[in-house]
Amino acid sequence: MTQHNHQTAPTQFVEANGIRFAYRRFGKPSGVPLLFNQHFRGTMDYWDPAVTDGLAKNREVILFNNAGVSSSSGKVPATMQEMGANAIAFIGALGLAKVDVLGFSIGGMVAQEIATQAPDLVRRLILVGAGPRGADMSTSRSAEIFAGAYDPPEHLWLAVHFSPSPSGRAAGLAFLKRKLLRKDRDPEASEEAAMAQREAITKYYAPAESVLDYLKDIRQPTLIVQGSNDVIVPTVNSYILQQNLPNAELIVYPDANHGSFYQYPQLFVSDADQFLTSALQGDDAKLQSPERLPFPSIVSAFSWAG
Amino acid sequence: MTQHNHQTAPTQFVEANGIRFAYRRFGKPSGVPLLFNQHFRGTMDYWDPAVTDGLAKNREVILFNNAGVSSSSGKVPATMQEMGANAIAFIGALGLAKVDVLGFSIGGMVAQEIATQAPDLVRRLILVGAGPRGADMSTSRSAEIFAGAYDPPEHLWLAVHFSPSPSGRAAGLAFLKRKLLRKDRDPEASEEAAMAQREAITKYYAPAESVLDYLKDIRQPTLIVQGSNDVIVPTVNSYILQQNLPNAELIVYPDANHGSFYQYPQLFVSDADQFLTSALQGDDAKLQSPERLPFPSIVSAFSWAG
Repeated sequence: MTQHNHQTAPTQFVEANGIRFAYRRFGKPSGVPLLFNQHFRGTMDYWDPAVTDGLAKNREVILFNNAGVSSSSGKVPATMQEMGANAIAFIGALGLAKVDVLGFSIGGMVAQEIATQAPDLVRRLILVGAGPRGADMSTSRSAEIFAGAYDPPEHLWLAVHFSPSPSGRAAGLAFLKRKLLRKDRDPEASEEAAMAQREAITKYYAPAESVLDYLKDIRQPTLIVQGSNDVIVPTVNSYILQQNLPNAELIVYPDANHGSFYQYPQLFVSDADQFLTSALQGDDAKLQSPERLPFPSIVSAFSWAG
Repeated sequence: MTQHNHQTAPTQFVEANGIRFAYRRFGKPSGVPLLFNQHFRGTMDYWDPAVTDGLAKNREVILFNNAGVSSSSGKVPATMQEMGANAIAFIGALGLAKVDVLGFSIGGMVAQEIATQAPDLVRRLILVGAGPRGADMSTSRSAEIFAGAYDPPEHLWLAVHFSPSPSGRAAGLAFLKRKLLRKDRDPEASEEAAMAQREAITKYYAPAESVLDYLKDIRQPTLIVQGSNDVIVPTVNSYILQQNLPNAELIVYPDANHGSFYQYPQLFVSDADQFLTSALQGDDAKLQSPERLPFPSIVSAFSWAG
């Protein structure tokens, strides 16, 4: 059997909750597949093949469009909680009992909702360019950047994902080339879908008392990846996530923006691989030889008390 | 020729500035050796053999006692600047034109001083448990922890370096075992040396106008490694370093304290190796294929302006 990759994996469909979910699944069959949750306005074609194929070398990866996005039916709900519930329904429809979950931007928020609502379903989390509920968006330039005009229009994503340095721009142009390689493309997300996503984002970031409390219940080993100067979800939010999650590693890449993992795809794949592979050793092994293992399964009550 | 390691490398001496510096040098001969700068009260025997031998697999490592510490002659100066100048004199006495520099805690401050005073001497920097000049020490428990009584006394270093979680404690006990393997040990640092180090630390952390400005001139690719809850140099300082250095990656390990790299020595060696090896590709290669390379040599003027 030929193994599919980012370019060749057929779009498949599965139904749950009355929604027909579009997805692609490829890579090396192994224990726990890795589910990718996409950013604002993104479809399955918005992922970087260098990242998806890179991670597919050691595991199956699953790309999908959540409800109401692109080739999936249904409506985009106006809360992250409902998006999380839809993603959980999709995972269930695939018959999967355990997944690793990667989320980018609002996908990272959906990933947190999946882990919160269905903790037993999630083994490990990778959050890229994400923030917590009630995130500090005071320095975000998101509104201004998405309202801008770009020639060609695709260069919007240079402004969103990449640093304006020469290296950042070169990495961005290389990413766009990779992104556009696939021919049979998903339809773009509708304006209606984008509006609902925007509403969900606004609600998610609303300040509230004890808004970060939910994070202490996300006990899965988590890798947080962020750019040094994220103009969409300000970088400080990755630090806040790390400090409030019980078992999270943070990596901040230099000279990088919202799409830090697309600026350094090989480095990211190596870091994410190390994170996901160390986890495969299992919790018991960890307790036997803590010096070998990055993610102890027991987190002290003292950790954040002092 | 048998290759030496942490346990067998003989203590050698070299003179510069009227100081007789004690050092040990071992590992795989290659381009640029890695110089280790030690923490408060530490001697060459305080390094974790899992880290030094791990990194020595791909390069030479050099351990030394700075002036006035343990088996080195001279006096500990009362400023980090002078400690940096002494380290530079030592590097010069070895006839080295270029080094990578790793610094732990006050060693990380000395490392920054070396890069500031002799930028051409330093290729790459690794800072562990370090802070910038004027660091935020408001939540440090350093004074209380170093004033405590421990049975056995060596367990002071569990409180300093390791998380109080079961995994952290187990990792700490494993570290102490590794640390004490070597038989012909350096003498302990004198009380006089410790007092001068303390004075230098106090001066270094003093708040001052534009105290962080020097960081923008440290243009070497830098890897910052920190524990999620550093009780000696509060974790936030690693984030401040990352945000103010022009070309720095930050890694924060979970459930970890001041000695985060001793809690996860294999993970740290892997991360540090990746960092030092990527750098070996050289600046020109970086500009050719930015997507392969974590540390672009050109940093945009926009990076931190916005």
